[in-house]
Amino acid sequence: MNSITLVCLLLCTGVSSFRFEELTQYVNSHEEEFIETLRQWIAVESDSSDVTKRPDLHRMMDMTAEKLRLVGGSVEMVDVGTQALPNGSSLALPKVVTARFGEDPSKRTVCVYGHVDVQPAKKEDGWATDPYELTDIDGNLYGRGASDNKAPVLAWIHTVEVYKALNIDLPVNVKFIIEGMEETGSNGLDDMIVAQKDSFFSDVDYIIISDCVWLSRRPALTYGTRGNCYFFAEVEGPKKDLHSGVYGGTVMEPMTDLISILGADLLRQLKTLHIIRLCFGCSTKLFPLDSSKVDLLAHRWRHPTVSIHGIEGAFSSPGTKTVIPAKVIAKFSIRQVPNMDPAVVEKQVTDYLHSVFAKRKSPNKLNITMVIGAKPWLADPKHPLYEAGKAAVKRVFAVEPDLIREGGTIPIARTFQDVTGKSIIMLPIGGFDDGLHSQNEKISRYNYMEGTKLFIAYLHEVSQIKKY
Amino acid sequence: MNSITLVCLLLCTGVSSFRFEELTQYVNSHEEEFIETLRQWIAVESDSSDVTKRPDLHRMMDMTAEKLRLVGGSVEMVDVGTQALPNGSSLALPKVVTARFGEDPSKRTVCVYGHVDVQPAKKEDGWATDPYELTDIDGNLYGRGASDNKAPVLAWIHTVEVYKALNIDLPVNVKFIIEGMEETGSNGLDDMIVAQKDSFFSDVDYIIISDCVWLSRRPALTYGTRGNCYFFAEVEGPKKDLHSGVYGGTVMEPMTDLISILGADLLRQLKTLHIIRLCFGCSTKLFPLDSSKVDLLAHRWRHPTVSIHGIEGAFSSPGTKTVIPAKVIAKFSIRQVPNMDPAVVEKQVTDYLHSVFAKRKSPNKLNITMVIGAKPWLADPKHPLYEAGKAAVKRVFAVEPDLIREGGTIPIARTFQDVTGKSIIMLPIGGFDDGLHSQNEKISRYNYMEGTKLFIAYLHEVSQIKKY
Repeated sequence: MNSITLVCLLLCTGVSSFRFEELTQYVNSHEEEFIETLRQWIAVESDSSDVTKRPDLHRMMDMTAEKLRLVGGSVEMVDVGTQALPNGSSLALPKVVTARFGEDPSKRTVCVYGHVDVQPAKKEDGWATDPYELTDIDGNLYGRGASDNKAPVLAWIHTVEVYKALNIDLPVNVKFIIEGMEETGSNGLDDMIVAQKDSFFSDVDYIIISDCVWLSRRPALTYGTRGNCYFFAEVEGPKKDLHSGVYGGTVMEPMTDLISILGADLLRQLKTLHIIRLCFGCSTKLFPLDSSKVDLLAHRWRHPTVSIHGIEGAFSSPGTKTVIPAKVIAKFSIRQVPNMDPAVVEKQVTDYLHSVFAKRKSPNKLNITMVIGAKPWLADPKHPLYEAGKAAVKRVFAVEPDLIREGGTIPIARTFQDVTGKSIIMLPIGGFDDGLHSQNEKISRYNYMEGTKLFIAYLHEVSQIKKY
Repeated sequence: MNSITLVCLLLCTGVSSFRFEELTQYVNSHEEEFIETLRQWIAVESDSSDVTKRPDLHRMMDMTAEKLRLVGGSVEMVDVGTQALPNGSSLALPKVVTARFGEDPSKRTVCVYGHVDVQPAKKEDGWATDPYELTDIDGNLYGRGASDNKAPVLAWIHTVEVYKALNIDLPVNVKFIIEGMEETGSNGLDDMIVAQKDSFFSDVDYIIISDCVWLSRRPALTYGTRGNCYFFAEVEGPKKDLHSGVYGGTVMEPMTDLISILGADLLRQLKTLHIIRLCFGCSTKLFPLDSSKVDLLAHRWRHPTVSIHGIEGAFSSPGTKTVIPAKVIAKFSIRQVPNMDPAVVEKQVTDYLHSVFAKRKSPNKLNITMVIGAKPWLADPKHPLYEAGKAAVKRVFAVEPDLIREGGTIPIARTFQDVTGKSIIMLPIGGFDDGLHSQNEKISRYNYMEGTKLFIAYLHEVSQIKKY
């Protein structure tokens, strides 16, 4: 324990009149009610990547605003414009929900960021249960978005609710900023943050993000994330799919082009581009069984990587189909680390794939688009925000937290840092095995309820931070 | 015109009492009725590759049997056993429908082969119309299976029907053998042909297959097809899909493995395996714009090729998903040519992909399965069957037919040849632009009706063939 921690602990315990027992008791007695709200939220298929689900996403934002109003917040729904679609049309973005609880200038002001959109999920992807029907199995609450990020957002709202229900003053002013496009790159939010830098954010001291998970069974504080450059590589050839018997051997097949530039050529990049070498190198070399714990975590947090997620337009059903797909779109993403710039990654990847494709002398057309370009983020784990986090974890869980980084991306963290200049902490309550983005995503009752208590305690600890 | 053609033409015209005008007039006056039957057949989603559609496929076989009975055939539905599924269970194969019209020992006997199963099709694949609702646009009849192979099968049944309706004796005895598994490799049919070699096939002189298309607007006779070895390459890794941010860089991703062996390594095969070199070579080298007509047709008919159809298990929807798929299955097929043996291709492909995969030292599991292994077929285009075909084409269309081979595969042609020893002709009526296996498959009213007339004429011409 270092000296800062010691000072903080002295400040945070004993002296205060923090009525923590009463607050946690309230959480315990309202567990089923909190789960019921989560059930209602999970039932909304707020998949931001699927434009056909946009009405559900709008409804999810309305429900979020309504919930915040219900617990006494001053709520606004901020129009952040439209989204340009690949076909040239545009679509309204989900509004960003902001809320304010308290305006006492003598208190600290925190801003809680979260999102209520989710990744795609279908039962037939291999879910044991309907992904949009919250299902409790042995104390685990299964459903798409349970851990990422609906339960954490609700835990924060319940935090405020619990203070209010017990008529206990919030120890800090609390603001909320809840978006609906996180899973596809937080479209529109960057501009909104820039626009509201001197209004909504002017009195904010700290920004809290609870959109990640612990590393183990021990609670964690997160001080860094990787960025994400998500690419579409589209190869377009014949006007329509062709019979592979009739045309095989007489046309350059878009699928062969695509597999070739993704496969052969990504390996060849090992010898050419430094950054891309790093990306593609590690996924071919690393595997936990061969790695020490330090290596493993380094490759998860500090090294870039690439993942090929799938191919749109090709035959993807069970069974056989003898078709030459006319247009195929590979989806792959590169997680970058500090000092990598998405704009540079975009140029390098685009130039490289085009140069490789050109060598094939294919008559087909290649189009590379970076559809998400989210920067990495890094904080100082010695900042008082983290000391407050340690104290809160200690109070609720009676252990020291892990201090970790995150392999995933919370696109907006870096924008908050760059635009507002505020200090940021990531305070996760999700379990290490929650299966974010995967089949059978869940959050446990334990993490949902104890996580709410952690947030309750954290507001108190933050109120104890001395101004520098 | 060679001497055999001349002799045939002399035999076929003038001397005979062939009432061709009456027969074609009947076809003309029943066009709408014939199209209505096709509409009913197209409405059945008899996709043999999708086990969930098996009830539709059984229904399609029943409808075929019923139609043959209605026009006076002696019909049997032959049980050809069950199909083993990848999960270890088994499923009843669709029965094979046989029918017989006439048993006059003084006449020739032909056996018409066809199939009533279809390739997969979904509106969202890019069809302009519902693939299972026959739609007439400018004289083209759009629907899955319209050209491949429902309309040709119906044209043959209508041929018999027309003779009967006009009370004209069939010039030859006609047998039918109609199956429902052609699109997935004619499962069960090989064994049935072997079993019935000395019964159903004993009095058959010739086998006629009309399961292909013309090369141009000119009618064609087809004397060869390529074979088809269809592979599943499955790479299985984590127990479930993983978040690519959280796990990217720390696991060997099945998708990376798969793309790598399909892309990099298939190219490397250029230097190793002769047969595979041929396969993968031509698809990277050939393109119509760079090729003479002879080269183009050679690569379509006489050279092997490979097509990668798609990947099951990866993300294939529009939009973005940051997932590491846990299990991915590439589907690819190799069209082989005479003197290539599917068993050898299977061993070479399997061994090679495993050897390449082994070098990656991936902890994932690779499983290669050849799910279709259909042999190529080649006939003698100077055989009297083809001379009869020329005469029939000349009678109906007043042109000489193209003599062509087919890039696609009719799996059973080779089995008929090897097992029964009978001579075979492929007599297509489908148009060159019918889009078999593709979106917006169609047959034109013209090809459907004139094709029926071609079959009517062909039965007459075959009856004129002298015994050797």
